[in-house]
Amino acid sequence: MEKTLKELADYVGGEVVGDGNIRVKGVMTIDVATEGYITFVSNEKYIKKLDETKASAVIVSPSIRTKDKNLLITKNPYLAFAKIVDLMMNPETEHPGTCDRLATIAASAEIGSNVTAYPYVFVGENTKIANNVVLHPGVFIGDDCQIGNDTILHPNTVIYNGTQIGERVTIHSNVVIGCSGYGYAPDGDKYYKIPQVGITVIEDDVDVGANTTINRAVLGETRIKRGTKIDSQVIIAHNVEIGEDTLVTSQVGIAGTVKIGNHVILAGGAGVAGHVTVGDNVTVGGWSGVIKDLPPDKTYLGTPAIEIERMRRCYIILQKLPEMKEAIKSLQKKVTQLEKQLEPRRE
Amino acid sequence: MEKTLKELADYVGGEVVGDGNIRVKGVMTIDVATEGYITFVSNEKYIKKLDETKASAVIVSPSIRTKDKNLLITKNPYLAFAKIVDLMMNPETEHPGTCDRLATIAASAEIGSNVTAYPYVFVGENTKIANNVVLHPGVFIGDDCQIGNDTILHPNTVIYNGTQIGERVTIHSNVVIGCSGYGYAPDGDKYYKIPQVGITVIEDDVDVGANTTINRAVLGETRIKRGTKIDSQVIIAHNVEIGEDTLVTSQVGIAGTVKIGNHVILAGGAGVAGHVTVGDNVTVGGWSGVIKDLPPDKTYLGTPAIEIERMRRCYIILQKLPEMKEAIKSLQKKVTQLEKQLEPRRE
Amino acid sequence: MEKTLKELADYVGGEVVGDGNIRVKGVMTIDVATEGYITFVSNEKYIKKLDETKASAVIVSPSIRTKDKNLLITKNPYLAFAKIVDLMMNPETEHPGTCDRLATIAASAEIGSNVTAYPYVFVGENTKIANNVVLHPGVFIGDDCQIGNDTILHPNTVIYNGTQIGERVTIHSNVVIGCSGYGYAPDGDKYYKIPQVGITVIEDDVDVGANTTINRAVLGETRIKRGTKIDSQVIIAHNVEIGEDTLVTSQVGIAGTVKIGNHVILAGGAGVAGHVTVGDNVTVGGWSGVIKDLPPDKTYLGTPAIEIERMRRCYIILQKLPEMKEAIKSLQKKVTQLEKQLEPRRE
Repeated sequence: MEKTLKELADYVGGEVVGDGNIRVKGVMTIDVATEGYITFVSNEKYIKKLDETKASAVIVSPSIRTKDKNLLITKNPYLAFAKIVDLMMNPETEHPGTCDRLATIAASAEIGSNVTAYPYVFVGENTKIANNVVLHPGVFIGDDCQIGNDTILHPNTVIYNGTQIGERVTIHSNVVIGCSGYGYAPDGDKYYKIPQVGITVIEDDVDVGANTTINRAVLGETRIKRGTKIDSQVIIAHNVEIGEDTLVTSQVGIAGTVKIGNHVILAGGAGVAGHVTVGDNVTVGGWSGVIKDLPPDKTYLGTPAIEIERMRRCYIILQKLPEMKEAIKSLQKKVTQLEKQLEPRRE
Repeated sequence: MEKTLKELADYVGGEVVGDGNIRVKGVMTIDVATEGYITFVSNEKYIKKLDETKASAVIVSPSIRTKDKNLLITKNPYLAFAKIVDLMMNPETEHPGTCDRLATIAASAEIGSNVTAYPYVFVGENTKIANNVVLHPGVFIGDDCQIGNDTILHPNTVIYNGTQIGERVTIHSNVVIGCSGYGYAPDGDKYYKIPQVGITVIEDDVDVGANTTINRAVLGETRIKRGTKIDSQVIIAHNVEIGEDTLVTSQVGIAGTVKIGNHVILAGGAGVAGHVTVGDNVTVGGWSGVIKDLPPDKTYLGTPAIEIERMRRCYIILQKLPEMKEAIKSLQKKVTQLEKQLEPRRE
Repeated sequence: MEKTLKELADYVGGEVVGDGNIRVKGVMTIDVATEGYITFVSNEKYIKKLDETKASAVIVSPSIRTKDKNLLITKNPYLAFAKIVDLMMNPETEHPGTCDRLATIAASAEIGSNVTAYPYVFVGENTKIANNVVLHPGVFIGDDCQIGNDTILHPNTVIYNGTQIGERVTIHSNVVIGCSGYGYAPDGDKYYKIPQVGITVIEDDVDVGANTTINRAVLGETRIKRGTKIDSQVIIAHNVEIGEDTLVTSQVGIAGTVKIGNHVILAGGAGVAGHVTVGDNVTVGGWSGVIKDLPPDKTYLGTPAIEIERMRRCYIILQKLPEMKEAIKSLQKKVTQLEKQLEPRRE
C-alpha cells in the first residue's frame, strides 16, 4: 500500500518541504533505507546521516532543514514514525474468532463474541472473557478471572485464579500474572507460608513483556494502572501499586507493597526495595537500587539512589579514587614535613 | 466461616485483651480493615495506625498495648496472622484426582493415587509420580523423574529428565528445573558444549517462584535442601547446593558450584560468583555481588560484598565524594601556602 | 561402555603417563570420584586434591605431574573432559521422528524428514521446519518462521512470527524469541506503541538458555551470529546484533540497538545500555553496567564499566573510604594547627 508523502504528512499532522507527490513504499532505518522509502531522525546522533541516506524522504523536527531531501516536518518525529509504521507496515493478523476443539473451556466460563481460543488454551470456572479477545496456544487462565475487550494473551502466558485484566491489554509469552507472592513468617527455624489470598488487577491499555512475573496480593490487590507499559523479565511483587502511563523497563525488580506514581520511568535493571513510595514523574536510572521514598518530579541514580547530578559526580570521582588516595598520601608527607620544620622553632 | 476472637487466640496460642466474644469475619490490612475484621501490626512503622484502624481486633506482640481495641497478643504476630489467614481465607481448591484425556502419560510412568493431570500435561518414560500430586495444564515432566507426595506443579512448568522432587513442594508457573547448565570448553576460537549429565534434586517443603530456572549438574547433583524458599526470576546454576530453610528472593543469581548454607537470606537481586561458599545464617543485602567465601552468622552488603556496617558507611561516604574532593583540593592549597611561607625562612 | 585410558587419550589427542590399559567406566568430579573412574583438574584451585582423589586416572595439563596416578596429559584438559563426558556419559535420546496427533501443524507449513513434533506443539502458516528438528511438548512456532536442520526446541519455548533459526541450534524451555520489543513514542501524557515489524535471526550453532527473551527488531533484524552461547534469564532487546562465538551469561541485559562483537564475554548480571558498541574480544565483568562504547581486546568492570585494573583498585579503595575520610579529617586538623602556628609569626 503506497502513499504519497503529502498523504503521510496529512495523516500525522505534519508539513511537507520538497515534493509531496513522491510515492512512499514503506519505512526503513536511516542506514539501510533505499529509494522509495521514508526514514526518520529523532536522535541528534543521526542528523549527520541525513545527507548520506538514500531514503526518498525523511521525518524530521522543525529545527532540521536540509537541501535536496524531501522532508516531513512535525513536532514529534518519533510519534509520526510510529504512526506511519503502523499505517503502512503493521501486518493485519486474522484470528478465527472461535474456540479450537483442542482448547479446554470450563462450562461455567462466559465467553464473549469473536473470541479466539487456540489449541491448548485452558480457561477455568466462572471466568469471563469479553469480546474480540485472542488467547494464543498454551495460554492458561484460572478460575474467577476477567479479561476485557480486545485483549491479547500471547502463547503460554499464565493467569492465576481471580486476576482481572482490562481492555486492549497485551500480555507477551510466558508472562505469569497473579501467582503467589513470596511471603513467609518465621516459625522457629522454619518458615510458615503466608497464604496470598488477594488478587492482581491489570487496567486498560497496559502492555506486559515476555517472561515477566506479577504477583497477587497477600490481602487486597496488586494493581497496574491504565496505560502503563512493562517490559520483559520484570518482577513485580505482592501488593505493589503502579500508577498510570508509567514505564517499567526490562529486568526491573519491585519488592512488596511498593507504590509507584504516574508517569514514572524505571530504567533497565533498577530495583525498588519493599514498602518504598516513588513519586509522580520520577525517573530512576539504570541498575539503581531505591531504598527510600523518592519525592516526585526528579531523576535519581545509583545504589542507594540519590539525585542524578550528585550521583553522576560521585561516579566520576569514584573512578579517580586511586589519584585521590595518592593526593592524600602526598599531603600526609608534606604535612609531616611541615610539622617537622616547625617543631624545632618552637624549642 | 466466622470465628470468635477467643477461638482465634486459642488457635494460634495467643491471649485476648478485650472482648474475646466478638465475631471475626476475616483478615484485612490495617489501612482498609472494617468492622468485623481482624488486622495485625508486625512492623513498627504501622503502630501509629493502631488508633485509626476500624478493625474490630488487632494481632499484636506483648509489648504493644492500646485502649479501646480488642487485642490478640502473641509473641509472633506475623506467624499468627499467617495462620489465621490460612484458617479463614485460604480457598480450598479441589482437583479431580484423575488424568485428563488431553494429558499424555507415558506407558512406563508410575502414577500414584489421587493424582491430577490436567489437559496438556506431558509425563515421560519411567517417571514416578506419588500420591495427591497436582500437575496443572501444560506441565512437562521428562523421563526418569520422581515427584513426591502432595507436590503441586503450576501451569507450564518444565521438569527435565532425571529430576527428583520431594514432598509438599510447590513449583510456580513457567519454572524450568533440570535444564542444561551453561558449560563450554574453549576449542580454538569456538566453544565445545560440555554435556550436563548430572541431575537436580529438590527436597521436601521447597517452594519455587514463577519464571525461575534451576540447572542440572554437569556431573553429580544440583541440590536444594528441605524447607528452602526460592522466589521468582531466580537463576541457580549447575552443581549449586543450597542448605535448609534458606530464603532466596527474587532476581538472585547463583553461579556454578556455589555452596549456600542453612538459614541464609539472599535479598533481591543479589548475585554469587562461581565456586563461592556462603556460610550458615548469613544474610546478603539487596543487589550485592558476592565474589569471596562469606563466613557464617554475619550480614554482608555491596559489590564486592563485605560486612554490612562497613559497607553502609562506605555508601554514605560515596555520596559525599564531591565534598571529599573539595576538602582535598582545599588542603592542597593550604599546604602549598604553608610550604611557601616556610620556604623563605630556610634561606 | 568402558574404554581403556589409552583409547581415551587417543580420542582426545592426548598422552598417557602411567598405565594406559586400565579400564575407565566414566567421568566423576575429583571429590567424589571412585576407582574405575577418570576425573580432571582444570582449575589450579584443585591441584592439591590430586593426591587425595580415588579416581583411577586424571586428565591434566602438561605442567602437572604426580606420582602414583595414571594421567591423561593434554594441552586443553577442560576440552578433553568435555569430549570424554560426551563419548561415555551423554545419553542418546531417541525421538519418534513424527508429528503427534495432539500437535497442530498448519496446512501450509513445510515439515522436513525425521521431524518430531510432540503433543501440544503448534506450528503456524508458511513455516518451514528442516530435517531432524525436535519440537518438544508445548513448543509454539508462529507463521513464516524457518527452523534449520538438527535444531532442538525444548518444552514450552515460543517463537514468534517471522523468526529465522539456523542449524544445530538448542533453545531451552520457556525461551521467547521474536516477541515485540519495548518501543513507545510519547504522545502527550500517553504512549503510542511503535509496531515492531522487523524479525529475529538466530544463526547456526547458537544455544539459548531457559527463560531468556530475545526481541524482534523495530525494522530490520535482531541477529545472534554463529556459535554464540546465551545463558538463562537473559534479555536481548530489539535491533541488537551479537557477533560470533560470544558468551552471554545469565541475567545479562542488552538494551536496544546495541552491537556486540565476536568472542566477547559478558559475565553474569552485566548490562549494556542502548546504542552502545562493544568491540571484539572484550570481557565485561559480573554486575557491570556498560554505558559507553568499549574498545576491543580489553576487560572492563564496574558501573559505569571502565578498564578492570583501575576498577579493581577503585573497589578496594571504596571499602577503605571510612579510613580515607578519617585521614582527611586528621590532615585538616594538622593543617589548621600549622596555620595557627605560622599566623602569629606574620604579625
